[in-house]
Amino acid sequence: MQTLSENRCFGGTQGVYSHAATTTNCDMTFGLFLPEEAQDGPVPILWYLSGLTCTHENAMTKAGAQQWAAEQGIALCFPDTSPRGEDVADDEAYDLGKGAGFYVNATQDPWARHFQMWDYVAEELPALLAENFAIDMDRQAITGHSMGGHGALTLAMSLPGRFRSVSAFSPICNPTGADWGRKQLTAYLGDDETTWARHDASLLMAETGFDGPVLVDTGTSDQFLDLLKPETLAAAAAKRRQQIQFRMQPGYDHSYFFVSSFMEDHVAFHAEALYA
Amino acid sequence: MQTLSENRCFGGTQGVYSHAATTTNCDMTFGLFLPEEAQDGPVPILWYLSGLTCTHENAMTKAGAQQWAAEQGIALCFPDTSPRGEDVADDEAYDLGKGAGFYVNATQDPWARHFQMWDYVAEELPALLAENFAIDMDRQAITGHSMGGHGALTLAMSLPGRFRSVSAFSPICNPTGADWGRKQLTAYLGDDETTWARHDASLLMAETGFDGPVLVDTGTSDQFLDLLKPETLAAAAAKRRQQIQFRMQPGYDHSYFFVSSFMEDHVAFHAEALYA
Repeated sequence: MQTLSENRCFGGTQGVYSHAATTTNCDMTFGLFLPEEAQDGPVPILWYLSGLTCTHENAMTKAGAQQWAAEQGIALCFPDTSPRGEDVADDEAYDLGKGAGFYVNATQDPWARHFQMWDYVAEELPALLAENFAIDMDRQAITGHSMGGHGALTLAMSLPGRFRSVSAFSPICNPTGADWGRKQLTAYLGDDETTWARHDASLLMAETGFDGPVLVDTGTSDQFLDLLKPETLAAAAAKRRQQIQFRMQPGYDHSYFFVSSFMEDHVAFHAEALYA
Repeated sequence: MQTLSENRCFGGTQGVYSHAATTTNCDMTFGLFLPEEAQDGPVPILWYLSGLTCTHENAMTKAGAQQWAAEQGIALCFPDTSPRGEDVADDEAYDLGKGAGFYVNATQDPWARHFQMWDYVAEELPALLAENFAIDMDRQAITGHSMGGHGALTLAMSLPGRFRSVSAFSPICNPTGADWGRKQLTAYLGDDETTWARHDASLLMAETGFDGPVLVDTGTSDQFLDLLKPETLAAAAAKRRQQIQFRMQPGYDHSYFFVSSFMEDHVAFHAEALYA
């Protein structure tokens, strides 16, 4: 593991690190914020999964999460959204290939060799953090934005006991039923739609739900509502009587101005679960 | 004036606008955050001047200022740092020409035609804001980062009565005595160093000071301390018994991670003056 940068930030340290990842067969870069308390011992962690076109950097610089994490004594991890490098397959579209890993393990060519983002985020990166940083892996929570909200919700529901709480900002809620999803799931997983179901937050909510609190925020002026389909998640959660705060925020859109506006709420929500 | 974007943000609106500027002879873009209170009437304003290589956008997306401005009911203006466009003179160096206006009115070729950033920030943009937005121009304050801290300090001390308070993050404090300054002042203003003095915060502090509170934060691990020379400003302020909080923040560097870490303090500092 290599340290690319470390900056003092809200009394803690915002670091950027890279490592040769075996799941994705390439060098991966991630951001990690450690609050001051990490100097004295392991701290809880909140994962932040980013959306289409993002790297590890966007949320790290624009979401304003460090201040609240510092206040709560929580670490933040910002993984990249796809494998990277010259020999990694890509597509001209912004929503397929690099920057658009969709948090799945691809089974189809040309993607399968590197696009193993589920295993990277669920297994390899947590193991790396546990080994190298003062993080209490028994206290994890997860959030994300857009495609990252999809990742957060599907990981949380698929790994029972791993995360104490899950939240999302304008998540892709029903990828098997929308153009942000069908195209990518076809490319990465193939035509057999039965393999898609475990990557659809609304289907997972109907099937298994989440054993803990859920918070979802979406803007009423989000320009991508037709692609996100928050209504399918809301309906599934209500039907199974899932503990959830599902909020449509008046006038907000899909941007980081929206994410940062409600970041304080989300970090406080996770802190309550992490320190319960 | 043209609206490039408007995003809901912390209950208010983060807008980006462009206009044909007569001072700089080109189209200029700026960011303006208006808190919710601006719907009911004019609100105070805090100017944020950015540093080398920045546009209007960097601080708008990375400084985390909107949340505190929203809490205090204060508008934020993020001007660009130089004239822009294909016919605007430039230099290969990052610290001269585009992105490096230094908040002066250039008198030398090839800069004089467009590089009139002092007049743009001191006169033209305030007039435009007063005409188009619900801003109380009797209640203004100013801050900035690095080159923008230099701009904030020199504008505040040169325009008595205009700003109720001034602050700066890692400002260039003594440009007549450092490589971030001598090169640019020579290029923009010529060899006669007597014309430089009114653009040196330390010299202005010794000469006139500021009729109000001053707050300056610099990181002890700032990689540019030799270019910033905060010690000259501190000495000048102490000598003239200027009301000032001059802080060296342990371990922080020159980045926006530093700026955002202390933004709450700065906005609260200005709010106290603006609502006094």
